[in-house]
Amino acid sequence: MAKVLVLYYSRTGNTEKMAEAVKEGVENSEAEVDLKNIEKVEPAILTDYEGIIIGSPTYYGLSAAPVKEFLDKSIKFHGKLTNKIGSAFSSCATVGGGVESTILSILEAMLVHGMVVKGYSDIGHYGPISVGEPDERALKECQDIGERVGNLAARFS
Amino acid sequence: MAKVLVLYYSRTGNTEKMAEAVKEGVENSEAEVDLKNIEKVEPAILTDYEGIIIGSPTYYGLSAAPVKEFLDKSIKFHGKLTNKIGSAFSSCATVGGGVESTILSILEAMLVHGMVVKGYSDIGHYGPISVGEPDERALKECQDIGERVGNLAARFS
Amino acid sequence: MAKVLVLYYSRTGNTEKMAEAVKEGVENSEAEVDLKNIEKVEPAILTDYEGIIIGSPTYYGLSAAPVKEFLDKSIKFHGKLTNKIGSAFSSCATVGGGVESTILSILEAMLVHGMVVKGYSDIGHYGPISVGEPDERALKECQDIGERVGNLAARFS
Amino acid sequence: MAKVLVLYYSRTGNTEKMAEAVKEGVENSEAEVDLKNIEKVEPAILTDYEGIIIGSPTYYGLSAAPVKEFLDKSIKFHGKLTNKIGSAFSSCATVGGGVESTILSILEAMLVHGMVVKGYSDIGHYGPISVGEPDERALKECQDIGERVGNLAARFS
Repeated sequence: MAKVLVLYYSRTGNTEKMAEAVKEGVENSEAEVDLKNIEKVEPAILTDYEGIIIGSPTYYGLSAAPVKEFLDKSIKFHGKLTNKIGSAFSSCATVGGGVESTILSILEAMLVHGMVVKGYSDIGHYGPISVGEPDERALKECQDIGERVGNLAARFS
Repeated sequence: MAKVLVLYYSRTGNTEKMAEAVKEGVENSEAEVDLKNIEKVEPAILTDYEGIIIGSPTYYGLSAAPVKEFLDKSIKFHGKLTNKIGSAFSSCATVGGGVESTILSILEAMLVHGMVVKGYSDIGHYGPISVGEPDERALKECQDIGERVGNLAARFS
Repeated sequence: MAKVLVLYYSRTGNTEKMAEAVKEGVENSEAEVDLKNIEKVEPAILTDYEGIIIGSPTYYGLSAAPVKEFLDKSIKFHGKLTNKIGSAFSSCATVGGGVESTILSILEAMLVHGMVVKGYSDIGHYGPISVGEPDERALKECQDIGERVGNLAARFS
Repeated sequence: MAKVLVLYYSRTGNTEKMAEAVKEGVENSEAEVDLKNIEKVEPAILTDYEGIIIGSPTYYGLSAAPVKEFLDKSIKFHGKLTNKIGSAFSSCATVGGGVESTILSILEAMLVHGMVVKGYSDIGHYGPISVGEPDERALKECQDIGERVGNLAARFS
């Protein structure tokens, strides 16, 4: 059975709430899911999953440094993540606050790993965004990407 | 006296309303302003201004093709826009709809022209964004960037 | 049998040479391939393929306007390209000439279409790049992505 | 007299060599220059300079985590860097290796700080890049941006 890993970093709890909704979404898919705080796991974990979804608050238009540190350490598994399905989400403090560029920066790192990154035609196109605490729309979009990435990973593995 | 050019493309009128607010902002600065529909001017106009602000709706996470066509034609003036002040704004249809990446794509083209591009610490960081018709916040941010780019162009020229 | 479409725009012939190498690569995969000049086809064609690879020269850090015009017109098929495999390549005039941002801009448009976009761990990470006329390395990378996208599309369909 | 800060992170020495060339360039300008290893300074230093140039190796298409950590900590001075001149440079391991996206990610963080970011019409457009050890072209471009940012900071302050 395909497995999806939802990784997040969160200080205020906003990104964590989004991560939990993503997890619920994967549970509605044909894949299994694990939800982990990115500071409590090592990059070796990445090789166990067919889908990887990473959430971060928006800090200076990019992911938080602990997320980047995790990505840098993942170089030990460079070449081992080829064709895994990737997606990302982010919360930010203000409208136009760099939240899309944060998601895109995570997707870029995934592309460097040789992953395939999923976009969305009908919700936040690069991934779900939230301004402040996630509202119903944001949480629904998080569930959506969880379900879609889960089904894609299932079909793909 | 420093002059700022506000260029826009608009189909629904949303980006045009933002452009008008940007123009009002420049009028509150130490610079003069002209507002032009990008389809009705030629790139030669760019050389007459110390500040250039471009607005576009978000089409597929990037500026509308007519804006890109204008930028491509501006190659005739490559090297002539060095150190002019640049900024951009965009309206999109949905939350997370590619509006930041649209602004960033315009800023990237300005950087290729050797321009200096202004960011904002307290409003939409790359430039003002609107989801659908611009609300009071979006219009206020448009005025803000007009005034700030105007004052920067004045100080710079 | 899965089918891959290679679309390109080229004025100097550099991007066209890359496109031909991409085509050769797909021929080494389990998928079929068509190679088309983007100015000679309509966006309706996109719905016939499981994989779509787009090449453009780098104009102001972004794809050429005719490529953007094609993407804008593809809105008629919005929602119809979900989960198709996407990739991109570009040639530019100078080192650091905006060629990565050109590729990323095409990938962003593909994400907005809900496509899944492939990265590469061992070659140009976002897609193959060439500075000026494509050399052996660039052409080899173009063949590589053709083959990999072809095999991925085959596995996926 | 205007002052420019050149900050870098380097493990192999490639980015450090670029940083030294940037410093030489500033010495040819009307501004003063300090060169610092980003791990040995605190963000408070940023407020002392009119120009800030940051160099990082390319790790997963983005700046190295220690650079991001420094940027995250710079939030204490949010709003204090408005209109300072910014620029960036990067070295990477392979052609198309994410080096432009690394530079752009640093520029994005600078924009979030309200800085003005300089582009280049005749050299690496977003900033100088090197693939592996910097060659003569790369070092010359580093000198160029040092001199240009220095003169711009002098004119601006």
